[in-house]
Amino acid sequence: MTINAKKPLPSWNDGPVRETIVRFVENAVGKERSDYIHPNDRIAVFDNDGTLWSEKPIYFQLAFAIEQVQQQAGDHPEWGDDPVLAAAIHGDFDKILEGGVRAILHLALANVRGETTEEFEDAVREWIGRARHPDTDRLYTEMVFQPMLELLAYLQSNDFRTFIISGGGLEFMRVWAEEVYGIPPEQVLGSSFKAKYELRSDGPVLVRLAEVDHFDDGEGKPVGIHKFIGRRPVFAFGNSDGDLPMMQWTAAGDGPRFVGFVHHTDAEREWAYDRDSIVGRFDKGLDEARARGWTLVDMKVDWKVVYPLE
Amino acid sequence: MTINAKKPLPSWNDGPVRETIVRFVENAVGKERSDYIHPNDRIAVFDNDGTLWSEKPIYFQLAFAIEQVQQQAGDHPEWGDDPVLAAAIHGDFDKILEGGVRAILHLALANVRGETTEEFEDAVREWIGRARHPDTDRLYTEMVFQPMLELLAYLQSNDFRTFIISGGGLEFMRVWAEEVYGIPPEQVLGSSFKAKYELRSDGPVLVRLAEVDHFDDGEGKPVGIHKFIGRRPVFAFGNSDGDLPMMQWTAAGDGPRFVGFVHHTDAEREWAYDRDSIVGRFDKGLDEARARGWTLVDMKVDWKVVYPLE
Repeated sequence: MTINAKKPLPSWNDGPVRETIVRFVENAVGKERSDYIHPNDRIAVFDNDGTLWSEKPIYFQLAFAIEQVQQQAGDHPEWGDDPVLAAAIHGDFDKILEGGVRAILHLALANVRGETTEEFEDAVREWIGRARHPDTDRLYTEMVFQPMLELLAYLQSNDFRTFIISGGGLEFMRVWAEEVYGIPPEQVLGSSFKAKYELRSDGPVLVRLAEVDHFDDGEGKPVGIHKFIGRRPVFAFGNSDGDLPMMQWTAAGDGPRFVGFVHHTDAEREWAYDRDSIVGRFDKGLDEARARGWTLVDMKVDWKVVYPLE
Repeated sequence: MTINAKKPLPSWNDGPVRETIVRFVENAVGKERSDYIHPNDRIAVFDNDGTLWSEKPIYFQLAFAIEQVQQQAGDHPEWGDDPVLAAAIHGDFDKILEGGVRAILHLALANVRGETTEEFEDAVREWIGRARHPDTDRLYTEMVFQPMLELLAYLQSNDFRTFIISGGGLEFMRVWAEEVYGIPPEQVLGSSFKAKYELRSDGPVLVRLAEVDHFDDGEGKPVGIHKFIGRRPVFAFGNSDGDLPMMQWTAAGDGPRFVGFVHHTDAEREWAYDRDSIVGRFDKGLDEARARGWTLVDMKVDWKVVYPLE
């Protein structure tokens, strides 16, 4: 028990996946080893939806955006003519999901109504503190993956800087990422809107604009990594085709690299899906991971528990 | 001598400015003090040109951009018809300076010719390693301010995360900021161009595009701070009107704040300029700093040395 308490990644079953991760980290910090990585270069990037927390039946941020649309719909009769907004008002998730991550952006853009960045953060904070998942009745922040929390902490304790690189909204995640993941706001990258500075009589504010600034999915992920981090990660974790360019970009660097995907194989404890899922489709990424020998986490096999409260 | 070696900020003369900085930092880290700042919130932001290194007779990055234009001019006879590019070809600095920071962007955009981000970084690295200042014949990286290097190190050793927030190019500064300032690429923010991901036969690359992504001067600074850092700094240093919105944004937060400007008052060791200078104009900022009691560094009075080699 004393020994186990000090063993890293206690919620990961022994096996090749856990072994690959631990060996990579031990080599990275062992100065005498050929796969040593200087602390400056210990950049680890993680997708969020489906990698650090669940994403079924709909991306969690989509639940927030739908609620916001429903709350504002009374002031916007014209929204009934917009297929995506109408679907949100009627809670027709399938219809929205057909539009993928871009449909979330569309909903989020509709919700921009001249609020300041602080007002938006307050709305997220209020929602994330009380909204519950329709299937599990848990808070969304209780549906993060315990093994991944341990992995983040393990990397952080070995002087890796851990970043989130998500298709989801940067301002949405930053509100709770530090408390939940130990990842500070400046290490959270996601899709974002433009903002403008206004000097009001009671002080300066930033007002959110209904204009996409950066779309952080697919090819937008390596572009975002270059823009925000400015150097290539040595460690990357994702779960879907939207992460594939980030994986290719990470893998193409010199020296030791770790590239891993969470494969959702556990219909009992979480969800099982890959090639045919609209949310978190994992098809080309699965083929490329197998062809290139990247690490595939078989959730059912590799994880002792899924959520922290189990 | 032993005591002095441990005294922070040895190149700063004793006086109210040095005292204000040291008191702010000592309060920030003293858990029992009312002005204590949690390490998570110890975000310090610095302008670069004129704040961390000199900027006369022209912004140093402008010297790089002009050289690039001159090298490529033979392939672009049409550049002779562009007033700014023609001025660059003829080395007419005054003409370019009339356009301010935007003229640098114009030159930098002209230099974008389908190169990858790595090719651009190589070009910057080559130039910064050999180019010398026209007046001092020093490498540009030898014209950083020794007192500010000490201030960065002092803040870093007290668990502040130090960021550069510059109107200059993010990809230009990142090449040398870590070695010179101890500031890693992910903590360097500046003006940037868009880029696109390409999967080539020999691997993925990011190709620079001749399109401005973020213009990080004036009101772009607080917008950029929100986008990249995601929380408000507690400590800000600048030197010109282009930094004023960043200072207002920093000052408007709750709790203890430090806001300081470098005032270029030393015509002998560096340059003396403020309200009437095109480069680094300091006019509205000077008035507002005085009105609000922000810290004004009088370079001639407050700094024992200016450059590291003195």
